[in-house]
Amino acid sequence: MAVHSALLRLQTSGEGEIIDLSTGLASALRSAGVSDGVVTVFVTGSTAAVTTLEYEPGGVQDLQETIERLVPRRRPEGGDYAHNTRNHDDNAHAHVRAALLGPSLSIPLVRGSLVLGTWQQVVLIDFDDRPRERSVHVQIVA
Amino acid sequence: MAVHSALLRLQTSGEGEIIDLSTGLASALRSAGVSDGVVTVFVTGSTAAVTTLEYEPGGVQDLQETIERLVPRRRPEGGDYAHNTRNHDDNAHAHVRAALLGPSLSIPLVRGSLVLGTWQQVVLIDFDDRPRERSVHVQIVA
Amino acid sequence: MAVHSALLRLQTSGEGEIIDLSTGLASALRSAGVSDGVVTVFVTGSTAAVTTLEYEPGGVQDLQETIERLVPRRRPEGGDYAHNTRNHDDNAHAHVRAALLGPSLSIPLVRGSLVLGTWQQVVLIDFDDRPRERSVHVQIVA
Repeated sequence: MAVHSALLRLQTSGEGEIIDLSTGLASALRSAGVSDGVVTVFVTGSTAAVTTLEYEPGGVQDLQETIERLVPRRRPEGGDYAHNTRNHDDNAHAHVRAALLGPSLSIPLVRGSLVLGTWQQVVLIDFDDRPRERSVHVQIVA
Repeated sequence: MAVHSALLRLQTSGEGEIIDLSTGLASALRSAGVSDGVVTVFVTGSTAAVTTLEYEPGGVQDLQETIERLVPRRRPEGGDYAHNTRNHDDNAHAHVRAALLGPSLSIPLVRGSLVLGTWQQVVLIDFDDRPRERSVHVQIVA
Repeated sequence: MAVHSALLRLQTSGEGEIIDLSTGLASALRSAGVSDGVVTVFVTGSTAAVTTLEYEPGGVQDLQETIERLVPRRRPEGGDYAHNTRNHDDNAHAHVRAALLGPSLSIPLVRGSLVLGTWQQVVLIDFDDRPRERSVHVQIVA
């Protein structure tokens, strides 16, 4: 067994943008040229997350609206979030959202394919309040 | 080190059913016959999730009710979810719930045992709005 | 490749306390003395979770308040949570919170460093309603 590393660099617009990572993952797997193992996907930074989703406009919109409802941009109890007040910042909601969803995902690789469903894509969600260049690490142990 | 793969096939009733995966995991570990490594549990499909839970009727009910409250079957703002409208579908809530909880879990295997607590079971939650046959992949790197 | 195991033992105060695991992780990595692989962090028990967060007082407070709002200590619909009623217990909210956030995290290790952001710390959240001694397993495959 060995470790194969790939780094996906993505330009996002932030504000909850959801990006399909399928192409980048497929490229990382082709480069590694391995058959069976585990693929770990991890986003660097505390205001973004990775998960899986049927990547179609309706599902993207529903997930964005639900997260906006559950962890609104403005503190629901009134006043401002503590992170914003203490740090003269404006992205506290992005930090909370990212911590709740989590930065990592681990996917079995079986006979050369990720065991994803046909309508299950690995996605990056960038919650920050401005465009960012993101680093998504794809670590393949196989 | 090597990779050991097991596939658990489960018949679920959907609608938020929570299924204890302990027996299937124990069987996968016996087949692999390994001592130290990492076990990755992953559910294929975008309307189900895996996590850990004390698997007793009260905890199961509380988790189901909380998820129903946080991401209701019907869009809280009124109208229907975009996934349903665009695709003439009825399981948008299942997609959102699954994306929030996530499809994967990684558990250390130490001296032949998963480092789970006595009252901590690995569970599958099927959020879809109908019975499904689910594939849960157990990938052991050890 | 090989597996390196470290066990972090932490005394928590419970009640949603968030603890920075950076020092323990750094120590586990020094002991392992490896360069490239995957580090799995897992908390044993069904009332705690691990995730990443910018570990500063504001972000800690915002995350705690948001979780308290989304999954309150007292059942929002009235009455008590089923776990509490059935088991004469008082920590049902802790079980639900832990199941939603999840107990595990997997982080690529590249050229001797975890691919975390500068302001992205791995944290343990103990949701239980009393102080606990917690076991966090750090499993390094490298």
